[in-house]
Amino acid sequence: MENLLYWIVLAAVAVNALTGVLDAGRKHMDLVGVVMVGTATALGGGTVRDLLLQRPVFWLNEQVYLLVAVATTLVVFVAVRGLRLPPRLFLIPDAIGLALFTIVGTQIALQWHAPWLAASLLGVITGVVGGVVRDVLCNEVPLVFVRGELYATAAWVGAMVLIGLQSLGVSPVAAAWAGMATVLIIRLAAMAFRITLPTYSSRE
Amino acid sequence: MENLLYWIVLAAVAVNALTGVLDAGRKHMDLVGVVMVGTATALGGGTVRDLLLQRPVFWLNEQVYLLVAVATTLVVFVAVRGLRLPPRLFLIPDAIGLALFTIVGTQIALQWHAPWLAASLLGVITGVVGGVVRDVLCNEVPLVFVRGELYATAAWVGAMVLIGLQSLGVSPVAAAWAGMATVLIIRLAAMAFRITLPTYSSRE
Amino acid sequence: MENLLYWIVLAAVAVNALTGVLDAGRKHMDLVGVVMVGTATALGGGTVRDLLLQRPVFWLNEQVYLLVAVATTLVVFVAVRGLRLPPRLFLIPDAIGLALFTIVGTQIALQWHAPWLAASLLGVITGVVGGVVRDVLCNEVPLVFVRGELYATAAWVGAMVLIGLQSLGVSPVAAAWAGMATVLIIRLAAMAFRITLPTYSSRE
Repeated sequence: MENLLYWIVLAAVAVNALTGVLDAGRKHMDLVGVVMVGTATALGGGTVRDLLLQRPVFWLNEQVYLLVAVATTLVVFVAVRGLRLPPRLFLIPDAIGLALFTIVGTQIALQWHAPWLAASLLGVITGVVGGVVRDVLCNEVPLVFVRGELYATAAWVGAMVLIGLQSLGVSPVAAAWAGMATVLIIRLAAMAFRITLPTYSSRE
Repeated sequence: MENLLYWIVLAAVAVNALTGVLDAGRKHMDLVGVVMVGTATALGGGTVRDLLLQRPVFWLNEQVYLLVAVATTLVVFVAVRGLRLPPRLFLIPDAIGLALFTIVGTQIALQWHAPWLAASLLGVITGVVGGVVRDVLCNEVPLVFVRGELYATAAWVGAMVLIGLQSLGVSPVAAAWAGMATVLIIRLAAMAFRITLPTYSSRE
Repeated sequence: MENLLYWIVLAAVAVNALTGVLDAGRKHMDLVGVVMVGTATALGGGTVRDLLLQRPVFWLNEQVYLLVAVATTLVVFVAVRGLRLPPRLFLIPDAIGLALFTIVGTQIALQWHAPWLAASLLGVITGVVGGVVRDVLCNEVPLVFVRGELYATAAWVGAMVLIGLQSLGVSPVAAAWAGMATVLIIRLAAMAFRITLPTYSSRE
């Protein structure tokens, strides 16, 4: 499990870096800007989780995450520049990345004895804060807060499934797979059927 | 005192969450966006203080703060949506929240042996950073930096009153009340008489 | 060396605070906004570095950095307000500040046993994140990501020179001077000859 997770997390880091590069491109950033925004998108969620839990920041302990994030941004910068890629192409890898980051983040929070609601929030933070950092650095309202196709919602429900199953005595491995499947199914279904949450508009 | 502070801080968390919801509403965020911005507004100041002091993040130790923040955003989302509430309604609860957060933050910083100027800044950070996070997430210039009705100023003077009285041997409880009163009086007077700070405009 | 670095870092803190004040002025912030943005610009990079390394935040241990940052913003606010200062005036002090912050940040990261790539990134973070925080607080796309006159690039190459020389057995003091000279030469040459990095524009 540990070993499988390791490779899956590396893949999720690469996918997240890619979404950062695409967004930075829209703001006409240069190579350094693209690398920094892509890397911050890829590592931002896990970094905030580790800072809040006061555990060592994951990419300082194992440099491979940083290498994968930077290498992905460079490859995307060189290879994709000039290509006309539809953003929809990345929605499914992005959903897989969301599922992975959220479940790994929730399990780490549980291992560090965070209480259940905080653990589920730390899972959601691991899953979505990279994108929030990306949008703040690109001077935009974070997409995850406005586009309601059950992005953070899917993450949170999946985290709660993981926490619920583990508290019922299900093994962490099985609970993790169930949690990831939950995130993926909800997110893909929401995209397919355009399910959105109600929005709030305060009148003034 | 500990016990009273506890309830007062919970009330301040709720008030701060509410201002986050109102701001998120102006950006047409959906339910998840509103919950996340409201929660970040409510817990952001104390979280940054705890990270800087490297003490355990307060809402990870005691889950009640997180529960109150999330519950407030949900109640406001359901109850207030569609109502036409004047923002001025919240100025007085907000001033109370500012006073509480600032004084509690300053006392925690002093307990963790921060030097005086840093302790006063950590108090101000506890009081105002929630609103700064809210405005950054809503893609706006932070209100506290531009609207000059002595918001952060009131917080800083109150923190200095607390620090000064404690260094003169006044009991922490009495110094805390004096500090809170100072913040409240300055803030309310500034709103009543429209007292503002000078602004700076660099010409180019 | 320690003693010299101390004074140089104080000077760099002041220069960084100054750039924050000038930017805040463009957004018509009041005195408190200017002080907070200036201070965040001056101390932001080192603060993020210290949080990521989980070492005590430098301005909480030694209050002098905070005093210098706040005093600089006040002096600039009072003295420069109304003066018509060309921003180009600050490009050379700013380049010196970039060199100092980057090299000091990289050395601290190496002392805390960060691996080489992470150490170079922490150096760059120390050098440029203050400006990123400034631009985010002023609701702008961070300049360092879009204006390509080798700003972060110069910092990164200088950090790598320092790391390379130290791993070859060169003394930390000599390696630091070489690293700083590298940052300065690249940055000044890039400004003089308008050397920029390629930019990325994703088509949609």
